[in-house]
Amino acid sequence: MIDKKRISEAVASIISSYKLPERPDGLYRPIEYALDCGGKRLRPSLLLASCMAVGGKIEEAESAALGIEMFHNFTLLHDDVMDRADMRRGRPTVHVKWNDVTAILSGDAMLTLAGSLITEVPDCVLRKVLAMFNRTAMEVYEGQQYDMDFEHRNDVSVDEYMAMIRLKTSVLLGCACAIGATTGGAGDKDVDAFYSYGENLGLAFQLRDDWLDTYGDAEVFGKAIGGDIVNRKKTWLLISALRERTEELSGILSEDLEDGELIRQVKEVYDSLHLSERCDVLINSYAEKAVSALDKVAMPDSDRKYFTELALSLSQRDK
Amino acid sequence: MIDKKRISEAVASIISSYKLPERPDGLYRPIEYALDCGGKRLRPSLLLASCMAVGGKIEEAESAALGIEMFHNFTLLHDDVMDRADMRRGRPTVHVKWNDVTAILSGDAMLTLAGSLITEVPDCVLRKVLAMFNRTAMEVYEGQQYDMDFEHRNDVSVDEYMAMIRLKTSVLLGCACAIGATTGGAGDKDVDAFYSYGENLGLAFQLRDDWLDTYGDAEVFGKAIGGDIVNRKKTWLLISALRERTEELSGILSEDLEDGELIRQVKEVYDSLHLSERCDVLINSYAEKAVSALDKVAMPDSDRKYFTELALSLSQRDK
Repeated sequence: MIDKKRISEAVASIISSYKLPERPDGLYRPIEYALDCGGKRLRPSLLLASCMAVGGKIEEAESAALGIEMFHNFTLLHDDVMDRADMRRGRPTVHVKWNDVTAILSGDAMLTLAGSLITEVPDCVLRKVLAMFNRTAMEVYEGQQYDMDFEHRNDVSVDEYMAMIRLKTSVLLGCACAIGATTGGAGDKDVDAFYSYGENLGLAFQLRDDWLDTYGDAEVFGKAIGGDIVNRKKTWLLISALRERTEELSGILSEDLEDGELIRQVKEVYDSLHLSERCDVLINSYAEKAVSALDKVAMPDSDRKYFTELALSLSQRDK
Repeated sequence: MIDKKRISEAVASIISSYKLPERPDGLYRPIEYALDCGGKRLRPSLLLASCMAVGGKIEEAESAALGIEMFHNFTLLHDDVMDRADMRRGRPTVHVKWNDVTAILSGDAMLTLAGSLITEVPDCVLRKVLAMFNRTAMEVYEGQQYDMDFEHRNDVSVDEYMAMIRLKTSVLLGCACAIGATTGGAGDKDVDAFYSYGENLGLAFQLRDDWLDTYGDAEVFGKAIGGDIVNRKKTWLLISALRERTEELSGILSEDLEDGELIRQVKEVYDSLHLSERCDVLINSYAEKAVSALDKVAMPDSDRKYFTELALSLSQRDK
């Protein structure tokens, strides 16, 4: 049975009590910095909740939970180098605070540490869990590659976009749930159900992220609104709008407009197509898919409520 | 018993028959390019030889052998980005042929693929082998970090240098031997002996590399001689010379000499200290240490000869 307080305490404690070697400084301090980024700690929480929901022991899944969070923070670190992102969660990124070389090497070390932490699951599930983790990692890299490929293409379809965010974001949430359930002793069918929960939750999560970047409240969201539009980022909103208003939108995007004006004009096109509402409907449909994936898994009502409320809160989050 | 022909055929076959997914192109083609670099394939050969020498089945170690080679090529790929190296083994490096972003992401994928290949050892040794691999990977990153730190220091001691090359180069050779012996069914003592063989072989190997960069034959060695001197790289030769001729050498290095003249003057200092011969003595002592590490391991004479001849040939190699 899920104990929410126990999960949040466990997540906080595995991260704060994790100790790295002192030297060499240049390798280990950036890892501590990257891991100490705050954030929702969604992936380790999902992993531990899935383990508890199937009746598993939380202690047996704690290292894997930290491993998944370590992997996630490694991907953010290397993605920030690749995307030349200067800030993350209100702080300079590692390659800005240190340099590119440090960001590359410390990231590599984080990936190895993640894999090493994952191995601390019980013997009986070791091979299964490692296979899930390694397959998922490859999918995440594929997602990042497609995301970068899309920058240079003007004919990305909505289906391609959904396939990309599934790889880049969703599979890791699915993997976190599946590793938790597997470590907790669930059978293959239930593990698949937990994977599907995380995967669909991830799609809802990422679409909400895209939506917030255009329709969020800058103060609550914590970053300037419209960044995706300014960067011509191929989000669900832009791809959908381009499909229906190709010429008009291409015209606006190719003009040399001032940022605020560009955002206003693009949003006007979005609004005329009711894209905000349509995106919201899509987000909710993925959140519902997530919840119904767990329908056939036996668990206490209060546990089901945990997963349902999480899906609801993530798909309606304002930050 | 070691079958040299079988080892070289197995190494060639595991690399040539390894298939990666078609898409995304930008992720997988650079991996094929990096893996298809030729080279001595020393690490997989050592792994398979160590497995056979303790009576193990070569098939059970083949994936791990490929995993170790994949890991090695991953470190070269990321090191080349960090060191801004344009060429490797006569070909443009990945970040030159493609770009930095590709080199980072494909390297990450190679590290995950390496870890995944390593897991294909038999169940009974899985945990042990993974622990060795993950610990070694961390040591290799530490070595790379120290190597970069040394660039900004003028007081690096010979001991610090030896500790650095042990981490950056030797431990992976030790790990290859130890994984091979473990997979082949060796007990802890024998595994440690194989590790020590690889570790000392690695020290001899790296020192010979430093020696060749100054005293090698450009045509045989395949690259220009004196690059380390021009780059003021803190090799065993430079560190040893700086200790005994601090002022004279610092003076030469700080002058704005033309490359050829700089190399000539530094070599003159080296020669006056008989550093070529002293380096050679040191190399041979590590090669001997490597061989004697195997003294207490029971194996056929022909197998012992294989490891002895390998140590000899690597420590006297001209390329």
